Amino acid sequence: MQKILVLGAGRSATSLIAYLHQNAAADNWQITIAEKDIELAREKTSRFEEARLISFDIENEDQVHQEISEADLVVSMLPARFHIVPARKCAELGKNMVTASYLTNDIKELSSEFEAKGAQCIMELGLDPGIDHMSAMKVLDRLRKEGNELTAFETFTGGLLREDKENDNPWKYKFTWNPRNVVLAGQGYVKFIQEGRYKYIPYNRLFQRTEVIHIPGHGYFEGYANRDSLNYLDLYNLRGINTLYRGTLRRPGYCKAWDVFIQLGATEDTYELENVNEMTHRQFINSFLQYNPGDSVELKLAHYLNIGMESAEMYKLKWLDLFSDELIGLEKGTPAQILEHILKKKWTLNEEDRDLIVMWHKFDYIEKGQPKQIQSSMVVEGEDQTNTAMSKTVGLPLAMAAKHVLSGRINKPGVHIPTHKEIYEPILEELNEIGFEFREIEVDLDDQSIKA
Amino acid sequence: MQKILVLGAGRSATSLIAYLHQNAAADNWQITIAEKDIELAREKTSRFEEARLISFDIENEDQVHQEISEADLVVSMLPARFHIVPARKCAELGKNMVTASYLTNDIKELSSEFEAKGAQCIMELGLDPGIDHMSAMKVLDRLRKEGNELTAFETFTGGLLREDKENDNPWKYKFTWNPRNVVLAGQGYVKFIQEGRYKYIPYNRLFQRTEVIHIPGHGYFEGYANRDSLNYLDLYNLRGINTLYRGTLRRPGYCKAWDVFIQLGATEDTYELENVNEMTHRQFINSFLQYNPGDSVELKLAHYLNIGMESAEMYKLKWLDLFSDELIGLEKGTPAQILEHILKKKWTLNEEDRDLIVMWHKFDYIEKGQPKQIQSSMVVEGEDQTNTAMSKTVGLPLAMAAKHVLSGRINKPGVHIPTHKEIYEPILEELNEIGFEFREIEVDLDDQSIKA
Repeated sequence: MQKILVLGAGRSATSLIAYLHQNAAADNWQITIAEKDIELAREKTSRFEEARLISFDIENEDQVHQEISEADLVVSMLPARFHIVPARKCAELGKNMVTASYLTNDIKELSSEFEAKGAQCIMELGLDPGIDHMSAMKVLDRLRKEGNELTAFETFTGGLLREDKENDNPWKYKFTWNPRNVVLAGQGYVKFIQEGRYKYIPYNRLFQRTEVIHIPGHGYFEGYANRDSLNYLDLYNLRGINTLYRGTLRRPGYCKAWDVFIQLGATEDTYELENVNEMTHRQFINSFLQYNPGDSVELKLAHYLNIGMESAEMYKLKWLDLFSDELIGLEKGTPAQILEHILKKKWTLNEEDRDLIVMWHKFDYIEKGQPKQIQSSMVVEGEDQTNTAMSKTVGLPLAMAAKHVLSGRINKPGVHIPTHKEIYEPILEELNEIGFEFREIEVDLDDQSIKA
Repeated sequence: MQKILVLGAGRSATSLIAYLHQNAAADNWQITIAEKDIELAREKTSRFEEARLISFDIENEDQVHQEISEADLVVSMLPARFHIVPARKCAELGKNMVTASYLTNDIKELSSEFEAKGAQCIMELGLDPGIDHMSAMKVLDRLRKEGNELTAFETFTGGLLREDKENDNPWKYKFTWNPRNVVLAGQGYVKFIQEGRYKYIPYNRLFQRTEVIHIPGHGYFEGYANRDSLNYLDLYNLRGINTLYRGTLRRPGYCKAWDVFIQLGATEDTYELENVNEMTHRQFINSFLQYNPGDSVELKLAHYLNIGMESAEMYKLKWLDLFSDELIGLEKGTPAQILEHILKKKWTLNEEDRDLIVMWHKFDYIEKGQPKQIQSSMVVEGEDQTNTAMSKTVGLPLAMAAKHVLSGRINKPGVHIPTHKEIYEPILEELNEIGFEFREIEVDLDDQSIKA
């Protein structure tokens, strides 16, 4: 019997825990769910009586040592800043560990210790980062093996809503993952490479510089650049490539309307507003506009941002009740915290809603002197408001990695992300079996038609 | 004989050191200039043979103790982050200290220790902060003493160029103080109060939301909001005031052109650009624009920011040689560092240049039921590129404070800023004697004419 220790049973753990339990009997696993909030853990495992639930405190060193020493593999679903604690303990005790979070330098430094113990620590095993690495590297490895020269790589992912369930929501968007990250998206800097030139976009222009992406059978999307694409030069071994761009997908029209919040300053998170406890939605918006009591908040905003009073952007703002006299309902908060709170009133999944994950890669390459292009995309629909496409695409590759590490099919001691064939191949195979498949098309660069 | 210890002899110390030496004999002072760079100190004191020069290291605890224990008063001209070191030692030894920097919490906490020792630590004794506090509080104290109710207070300061020396410079601006602070100005958040409403401006809109200020005899200026005006509610005892706005003055047209840099992202300081060592001015600007090799950088910029090709903003950019193929001349750098480096090529004072300090306050109040307005302004011209108005307005109030602390005329033990009459009165008197005077006018609110 092999023992799996799951640290944390928050929202993101639903699909992961379900998978582990479904496979527990056949694979002879004993599963422990370790969670600070024991009630939350009980709820998550109510259908799985064989699971062991424990009340767990990551700051209790004795408990961390005790539980990890008894486990064969640790799945850390803790907030990202805590991963270093089980990682150090796993390295020390020679235990395996998997997470869906970004690999950090302090964990990378443990690689030789993991390797010396013959243990594996694999990070970035979710959707993005996760499936993006696996699916991109699969094509990149193949194209390179065939002797082609890569000239451009673009990759976009979006957590969206299914078209047919969006009803009247003009944003065609609701929160399906951490709302705070959605509100703060794009803060910091953006770097990418276009035709051999390094390009930089500041936050105040990011949502104005979108790209249009078409996915056959699923329509048009718009994408904005995501952080530092240059990181992928080394991660994917792409030094010398002409174009490298990583982005986030939204439905058309989202970005121009979201830009209103950025231009107002409503996504700032560095200071708190005054008198939030008695503030209405309308006053929140007005606090970013010029004082002019004779003019309406609507007209001041439209004029300030140079958009029409009857524009699609104004309609989106009105749909969110941003101009209403409704109280915000917070005691205090930064602009970003208040905006998140207001958005949640309309952007929370209800029983009718099904979410949608879209991932799209574009590869330009030279094959025997001829320029070629492949596009590869995956679209996953959610089942309901709990078993979302987001929860599944984040949790299942992680769970599958745990399975293949325990079975020995994935056996690459050290600290890694799933850019290696030994790691991504078994996971992509299994994802494909449950319908999370990438559709590849070859595009004719002369007339842009789809060849295959 | 009283002993003055001056820590640091950088650019900002010129006028301060000259004043101290001019007064040394009459006031029976012995002056020590303590500076890491002993050559710099020698240059600053070449005309004053009686000064004692020492090579000084703020991180040498024994030396800090030794020198401060021998002094009666310490003038700290060190970089702001180091003030806490002499402040702690002065509190411990019961010595007086003065600086031109912002009061920080860690220094504020030393107040009772200073008070117990009967010693004074006075911060914010420069221009802004410094003369702004003194001159505003003088009027505020008077208006309140006369029983009037304050309804609005606005205050603006600018370090500019004298009109007649600006020649063809369309910015009518050069660096007269720390260039880095000019490039980063406005980053962070801006808060103020207008007609009873709290207002917030994000960085990306700050230089678009300017106010026009007219100073009789000196013409028009434009002002943009400066950081958190709400701090002045308590500093100046203004709780309940309807309008409170603190800003920075520039010549008309500056802000709209500066906004180009903000919109491009050229003032960002959080990441470094790639390949800076071989980058030209033109490539620097192009790195923030869309890839489109068939179009000129000029047209791409004008279209991106919606300004005319022959606009005043484009002319200002061209005057800076921003579109030229000149190498930047740095090995590496953030956008802000690169922009600062390029600007210094044109914005450095030459022999012809004289700088100009402008400070302007507006007070609205109710006198016996009648709304009234006073405007108070000071304009100071520089002598040459060394004895600048900036150097004098920053250094002289600090030197005068040192004098009056030593003479006992300023005697307010504890940590303070010059918002107290005991502190500001003798300094303003002496500033007035050397011609740094505030001109007060009363404005008729019915027809905006000047009454007095």
